[in-house]
Amino acid sequence: MIVVGVSPEKEWGGTHFLETLREYEYPGAVYPVNPKYEGEEIHGYKVFGSISSLPDDPPIDLGIIAVPAKVTPQIVEELGKKGVLFAHIFSSGFSELGEQGKQLEQQLIENAKKNYIRILGPNCMGIINPKSRIHIAHKIPLVSGSVAFISQSGGNVFRHIYAAFIKGYHFSSMVSLGNQIDLDVVDFLNYFRADPDTKVISMYVENIKRSGNEFVQLLKETTKEKPVIIWKGGKLEAGHSAVMSHTGGLAGDITLWKAMARQTGAIIVNNFKELIEMIQTCLLYKIPKNLGTAIITGGGGPAVELTDECEAFGLKVPRITEKSQKMIEEFIPAVNSNLSNPFEFGANGGHENMIKVMKILDKEPHISSIIMTNNPEWYSREKLNMEDVVKSLANALSPDSHKNLISIHSLFGIRKESIDIINEFYSKTRENGIIIYDSAEAASKSIHRLWSYGNYLKNRGIEIN
Amino acid sequence: MIVVGVSPEKEWGGTHFLETLREYEYPGAVYPVNPKYEGEEIHGYKVFGSISSLPDDPPIDLGIIAVPAKVTPQIVEELGKKGVLFAHIFSSGFSELGEQGKQLEQQLIENAKKNYIRILGPNCMGIINPKSRIHIAHKIPLVSGSVAFISQSGGNVFRHIYAAFIKGYHFSSMVSLGNQIDLDVVDFLNYFRADPDTKVISMYVENIKRSGNEFVQLLKETTKEKPVIIWKGGKLEAGHSAVMSHTGGLAGDITLWKAMARQTGAIIVNNFKELIEMIQTCLLYKIPKNLGTAIITGGGGPAVELTDECEAFGLKVPRITEKSQKMIEEFIPAVNSNLSNPFEFGANGGHENMIKVMKILDKEPHISSIIMTNNPEWYSREKLNMEDVVKSLANALSPDSHKNLISIHSLFGIRKESIDIINEFYSKTRENGIIIYDSAEAASKSIHRLWSYGNYLKNRGIEIN
Repeated sequence: MIVVGVSPEKEWGGTHFLETLREYEYPGAVYPVNPKYEGEEIHGYKVFGSISSLPDDPPIDLGIIAVPAKVTPQIVEELGKKGVLFAHIFSSGFSELGEQGKQLEQQLIENAKKNYIRILGPNCMGIINPKSRIHIAHKIPLVSGSVAFISQSGGNVFRHIYAAFIKGYHFSSMVSLGNQIDLDVVDFLNYFRADPDTKVISMYVENIKRSGNEFVQLLKETTKEKPVIIWKGGKLEAGHSAVMSHTGGLAGDITLWKAMARQTGAIIVNNFKELIEMIQTCLLYKIPKNLGTAIITGGGGPAVELTDECEAFGLKVPRITEKSQKMIEEFIPAVNSNLSNPFEFGANGGHENMIKVMKILDKEPHISSIIMTNNPEWYSREKLNMEDVVKSLANALSPDSHKNLISIHSLFGIRKESIDIINEFYSKTRENGIIIYDSAEAASKSIHRLWSYGNYLKNRGIEIN
Repeated sequence: MIVVGVSPEKEWGGTHFLETLREYEYPGAVYPVNPKYEGEEIHGYKVFGSISSLPDDPPIDLGIIAVPAKVTPQIVEELGKKGVLFAHIFSSGFSELGEQGKQLEQQLIENAKKNYIRILGPNCMGIINPKSRIHIAHKIPLVSGSVAFISQSGGNVFRHIYAAFIKGYHFSSMVSLGNQIDLDVVDFLNYFRADPDTKVISMYVENIKRSGNEFVQLLKETTKEKPVIIWKGGKLEAGHSAVMSHTGGLAGDITLWKAMARQTGAIIVNNFKELIEMIQTCLLYKIPKNLGTAIITGGGGPAVELTDECEAFGLKVPRITEKSQKMIEEFIPAVNSNLSNPFEFGANGGHENMIKVMKILDKEPHISSIIMTNNPEWYSREKLNMEDVVKSLANALSPDSHKNLISIHSLFGIRKESIDIINEFYSKTRENGIIIYDSAEAASKSIHRLWSYGNYLKNRGIEIN
């Protein structure tokens, strides 16, 4: 790997890439280039004076360019002449700034074509690939996962790194696209479609530079094999203008994107939080067979709210069969409870009763989702072992159950004394295949979207789960 | 105060009320009644054997009834004969259970009328009034505030107590209504309308038992003087059935409620979280003169997202005047920044520049809301004093500014090492009149609703702010 544009006096830019290559002990050869610092060492790598003076063997796969914009076309040419196949241009100051930048981009494209080199960027953070020990954020455990993330915003790559770290999922690869003058969304979608490590493809995209048809066709092919989650940025007029400034592209209207999603099975989300939640949902949950949802909670007010929210976002909260209801009435008294769906157990609840109810609901044909509100602090007060509690909940459903067990827990401010308890609850549920959403709205949106994806596949004769 | 139905063997029910009266050192006389425990002491109060044997002087204002449902009509009669004016019936097992319960309620109403006693409930938690040292939750600082909360769910009263504690606001009174067989939403709305301690009225309501016209008229009168925030529970079919079971009433469709809100200036919210956010908004913010919003953030991706979200929920993100833009360009370089609205400052940001930009935006006529994303952990890493930072942000706007300063900070999971920093940031912002919302969606909804309320008042010639 070549990094052009490094300086012992700067932390950001090319030097930052050197620093992370060192931090994660990237096993390949790394050649920093800057004539000014020839022979010096930066982060333990010896600096070369020119690209032409670099060793020819082993061949160099990637050049990272972090020099002022106006110098980049020349560097691309030099890299091409050296036989490098890919250049990632970190530098900014191109079409996102207007006319002059556009001309520079044109020159980049010409030089790249002439020299048989493909370009990622400019104006982007490049590639993250834990398997190859390439990362751009510090102190991240390099765990290879199954989520691919394609992003037209480097900032959103960083946000996603930290969010995934907290939520406990990992990436096969992440790529920050920048201005997409050559390699673009379509190229990477195509790559991740075929990548056996990638189970879920997610993207933050503001615009498509290629013909929409190509993108649509590729989406159709991809969603047959794995879910594709799209967060479209720049939905309305002012959002557009933010996009223009951001990566210099033209953005399509969100209504077009939604229509496209219906045709292709892609899953559209509205914002970063929904993206994270949808990825977790695709990773951990079975595609629901129907929209039927059972709600189990402590009191009447919360039961009404959960039902309202589920129905507002597309789920159904049907009555359960009389048989099941009778079975529940055998062990829970009716006073201060509601023993039909939504279930309110009030003071008649308790963990043992919950488990019994789960087992009964597991047999209900019109229910695919079981939503419960858990209070980890209550488990702690009752001196229940968190691992046992969560495991017994998860195991209450039979191994061949097609139902998903869902938990709602909202973080209203932070009480220091509860953090360890809450974090333990979050990690134990995750290990046992239960997602904790922060609201019924969040759960309902995600489950409904997963159901829609399943429905799309079913209508095309593709078997699910 | 009389508490009927107490037992040294039970924690809940009448005994719970005794416990909290003791905990908060209620200064009035308290008479527990239960013939079985006559002469014993519960939570330091001497138990009486009958209502008729209680002292006549001073007169008793309220009786709390926590006996089995079928005994309640008789107790109401006895309280009435003793000259008690109000009975709060905690007991459940009435119309929420069906026909037999309805007959019991009928009997309660008759006995109440005959004996000139008014009833709150049944099936409710009653009254909280910090000024009178009456509370139902443990270990809550008894601070008298300016928010009234009327609730048809006792569970939602408890949730609200803890949420307000975390968010740092306080109540003038809270009332849990239950089945509303006598005193109802309209009575309490009327009371809080005239209550000088109450600045914001909030309610969780599932149904209105009286004529809708009366409620509508009263709302119109009330919103002229103070904002009324309504969270309507039981919006759709299944929600209705949850409501039926919950308080035995009939619920109206949410579309009707929304129409009613447009006619009366009431502010409708969709769920508990929105209720909390709307109360904070009414307490801390000026009614915005327009929907214009300035967005200040670090990077391009977040700028696009914030703009999308603001516009999706009704705010506008207009261009600023050329004059202001030129002023900003004088101290922030254009590369890696966007110096029009939405503002992205990237590495060119920093706290000092933020303050300068605030001062410039303060002069923009088409902006009423300034939304910024703050990272309290960054302040800490940069060794900035949190109090100074927040104060300088708040003071950047002139004292007669009509703009609101808004912060967005989302809690993605909990990192233990950041909690003190985050909590300090939350409390300092609050002290300086800045609300931290967890998303642009939350901020936009609240600000748009406050603007709509202002618009309603303006159209009726009522002066605002």
